[in-house]
Amino acid sequence: MQGPLIGVIGAGVCSEAVAILSREVGDEIARRGAVLVCGGLGGVMAAAARGAKEAGGTTLGILPGASIYDANRFIDLPVATNMGQARNAIIVQTAQALIAIAGGYGTLSEMALALKIGKTVVALRPQFEIVGVQRADTAKEAVAIVFDHLESC
Amino acid sequence: MQGPLIGVIGAGVCSEAVAILSREVGDEIARRGAVLVCGGLGGVMAAAARGAKEAGGTTLGILPGASIYDANRFIDLPVATNMGQARNAIIVQTAQALIAIAGGYGTLSEMALALKIGKTVVALRPQFEIVGVQRADTAKEAVAIVFDHLESC
Amino acid sequence: MQGPLIGVIGAGVCSEAVAILSREVGDEIARRGAVLVCGGLGGVMAAAARGAKEAGGTTLGILPGASIYDANRFIDLPVATNMGQARNAIIVQTAQALIAIAGGYGTLSEMALALKIGKTVVALRPQFEIVGVQRADTAKEAVAIVFDHLESC
Amino acid sequence: MQGPLIGVIGAGVCSEAVAILSREVGDEIARRGAVLVCGGLGGVMAAAARGAKEAGGTTLGILPGASIYDANRFIDLPVATNMGQARNAIIVQTAQALIAIAGGYGTLSEMALALKIGKTVVALRPQFEIVGVQRADTAKEAVAIVFDHLESC
Repeated sequence: MQGPLIGVIGAGVCSEAVAILSREVGDEIARRGAVLVCGGLGGVMAAAARGAKEAGGTTLGILPGASIYDANRFIDLPVATNMGQARNAIIVQTAQALIAIAGGYGTLSEMALALKIGKTVVALRPQFEIVGVQRADTAKEAVAIVFDHLESC
Repeated sequence: MQGPLIGVIGAGVCSEAVAILSREVGDEIARRGAVLVCGGLGGVMAAAARGAKEAGGTTLGILPGASIYDANRFIDLPVATNMGQARNAIIVQTAQALIAIAGGYGTLSEMALALKIGKTVVALRPQFEIVGVQRADTAKEAVAIVFDHLESC
Repeated sequence: MQGPLIGVIGAGVCSEAVAILSREVGDEIARRGAVLVCGGLGGVMAAAARGAKEAGGTTLGILPGASIYDANRFIDLPVATNMGQARNAIIVQTAQALIAIAGGYGTLSEMALALKIGKTVVALRPQFEIVGVQRADTAKEAVAIVFDHLESC
Repeated sequence: MQGPLIGVIGAGVCSEAVAILSREVGDEIARRGAVLVCGGLGGVMAAAARGAKEAGGTTLGILPGASIYDANRFIDLPVATNMGQARNAIIVQTAQALIAIAGGYGTLSEMALALKIGKTVVALRPQFEIVGVQRADTAKEAVAIVFDHLESC
């Protein structure tokens, strides 16, 4: 395995501020030697994958659609599930811990699915207050929490 | 089709009070001629299915596991997905509208998946406050909201 | 549970002769008190479901698409998986035994998935010769083999 | 994207001769710059992934179970679908073309699912004769057919 698999979840469309934060998260994940797992589309997913690629990391995109060409251009390995939102369950099953950035209902579903199966979830700028989700204020802090968790497993 | 498909979502273990409420919801769904769709297991799912069966209704259970025999005894038609929590996406895709009763992370994931794809979600005794979910105070009220929605579609 | 769940698998478009045979299979399944499970679309699926409904049976359609309205009009309970051909795995997991009628690659995938998980598969007018599939010459014979199998389980 | 995604499908247990052939296929896929996609388990999957890794390639394993640790040690990027045999549909959706090596019912299901959605399938030592599958006699020939196909797309 190339390294720990860290999930980054967030909406397919996002503000510039959220994109910058997402890119920082991707950068930090790659710098620490982990693989970034995401939903492979735009917004937070593309910005985080871009950050990871710019830092020399590897990116895995688990797509809802039927085509690997749906992936954003920062995805090294696309997986075409053709399962719509059910692919969210595959993302959380595959990632060893997850960082949620802002996000809407899709992200909320991933947070809930992750918590349901006992995965660590750290949130940056959360839209929803969910018991069991850890809060972080910066990209570095979010990734640090995730790595602390992986090391204690 | 036998009737509108109404989803009832909630945890696999629940208090007596929540079970009574779930049974009332199932009863009301069946009385109004709809089919009850649920996750097929215990707790809220079993209580709602029981209510529907006692009122002469039909119940469809979409199970996470590999065996149709995992279904509670009030399920007429079990579907064995063998897909774990990814089956939550199938429940919300299949139900035309959903009623959430109490519930934990699994239920939260279903509420979020449902809202993501534009389905109506009505909540009784919600554990989480999610924008876009409609609140109801009684079983009758929850089912009435759902039927009003179906009729206006 | 309403009765044993018997899967009928076959192509979404079929000849008149295959449609007649499918309808006989559906009729025989319903007469013997079983529920017909199929992919919910046209061709063999619609003809078998029609046969089951005309004999007073119940039909469950596990659809590849996102909408329960994709189901043919003989389906009582549609399940919208939104998972494309991955829904084939759900059909074979749910059915206790399966009857394949003619069929193309989709049907072949279902036969193989069923055999992989140890389900009995009986074939009428098979397009492919697969070791482990039992052959039958008439609808009555196919359904009889399936029921003999269920009783010996 | 790191390169074309070539699927290798085959049984989780295989003879030494089939393992050698699988390793040659993995080697050739990696030498030609493609990513190997497989089911991530043992037998043909492990041998092919080993061949790809020894030639400096990248391997993606799409697993049936709930844990990325189910992957064989030659998998760089594991995906834990927790969907049993339904993951076969994800493998064929993700791979741009597939090479089947020997194989049993699981492999047959993948061949059929691939043909159903129009993917090229090349078979080495096939157990089943399926119309539409191309035959090859050596690892090099199988990979050459797949690359010829990708270039003509």
